[in-house]
Amino acid sequence: MSEKTKARKAALAEKLVELAERQIQLGGLASLKARPLAQDAGCAVGAIYNVYDDMTALVLQVNGRTFQRLGAAVTKAVETARQDTPTQRLIAMSHAYLHFASENTNLWRALFDVEMSADGPVPQWYLDALGGLFSNIAEPLSEIFPDMHEHELDLMTRALFSSVHGIVLLGLERRISGVPDDQIEKMIGQVLTQIG
Amino acid sequence: MSEKTKARKAALAEKLVELAERQIQLGGLASLKARPLAQDAGCAVGAIYNVYDDMTALVLQVNGRTFQRLGAAVTKAVETARQDTPTQRLIAMSHAYLHFASENTNLWRALFDVEMSADGPVPQWYLDALGGLFSNIAEPLSEIFPDMHEHELDLMTRALFSSVHGIVLLGLERRISGVPDDQIEKMIGQVLTQIG
Repeated sequence: MSEKTKARKAALAEKLVELAERQIQLGGLASLKARPLAQDAGCAVGAIYNVYDDMTALVLQVNGRTFQRLGAAVTKAVETARQDTPTQRLIAMSHAYLHFASENTNLWRALFDVEMSADGPVPQWYLDALGGLFSNIAEPLSEIFPDMHEHELDLMTRALFSSVHGIVLLGLERRISGVPDDQIEKMIGQVLTQIG
Repeated sequence: MSEKTKARKAALAEKLVELAERQIQLGGLASLKARPLAQDAGCAVGAIYNVYDDMTALVLQVNGRTFQRLGAAVTKAVETARQDTPTQRLIAMSHAYLHFASENTNLWRALFDVEMSADGPVPQWYLDALGGLFSNIAEPLSEIFPDMHEHELDLMTRALFSSVHGIVLLGLERRISGVPDDQIEKMIGQVLTQIG
């Protein structure tokens, strides 16, 4: 492939990610379709598949960007709170998670709507991003439970993440079984305070 | 409407719920379509809409049955554990929730996949079923936190339900961010023990 072709391919790949990101943000993952996307990008439908194996691969790229922004928001929250108690740091991170999900609801939902299980192949960069998020949670937890073994700590990290995720999910969906939006932040704090 | 027509309508309504339930259980909510359903029931597609306003109304009926079975499973668990500590009762209910979700995954998911938010009209029988489930959770909680006001207790009930739901959801989906499924039961116990 000539340098010029490579550059053109890279430019199209970048453009498609940006357009797909905007579409998911506006209309949710289900609204992303190859034909209108190609139209927006000014290319043929087939050109998308020259750049990405399939639409899932494109969505994974979008999710990668979302994950990076989410990770940055959580890291910033825990750094701002670094003088606080471990429990307060957990609460600060959870609130950052809530705010990110609330402001980027469709992009955040897409993180969980793409088929990607512990059984299937998961890209290494995704595992790295997840590892970074989890180590942010594990650190204050290891201060709260200094005698916990590494394996237990990993499980507790996942359980806590899932708990906060559940509160944010049912709350933001305004599910009648969820926590009312204006109270989500408070309830996360209350549950985490009990745990700490 | 003659008695005979009424009886025929009621029989079709019942038949459709049973067929829809089986279809959701086998293939998930997205697999339920009016045309094949009518074929299974041996009626015209239009006959479905003589009995139900729309497919969502039919799914709500299925969800009502699922909710009743879920409620019965949770109530049985808490009754079996009624001599135990409040924390143990919460754990017993959560485990019953996990097992129900694990054995009826598609029907359980349909409870949350139907558009039904706190803003829209929600059938009274649904609210009653939900109220029953929540009062089962609120009771042990009020023993753990005897000084908590009713409003706080209600929020804590919803937050705890959402937490357990999150652990079960990400765990059963085998999400890489979730708790490995063979550890879900243990982790629910650990989180609830911390809270209690």
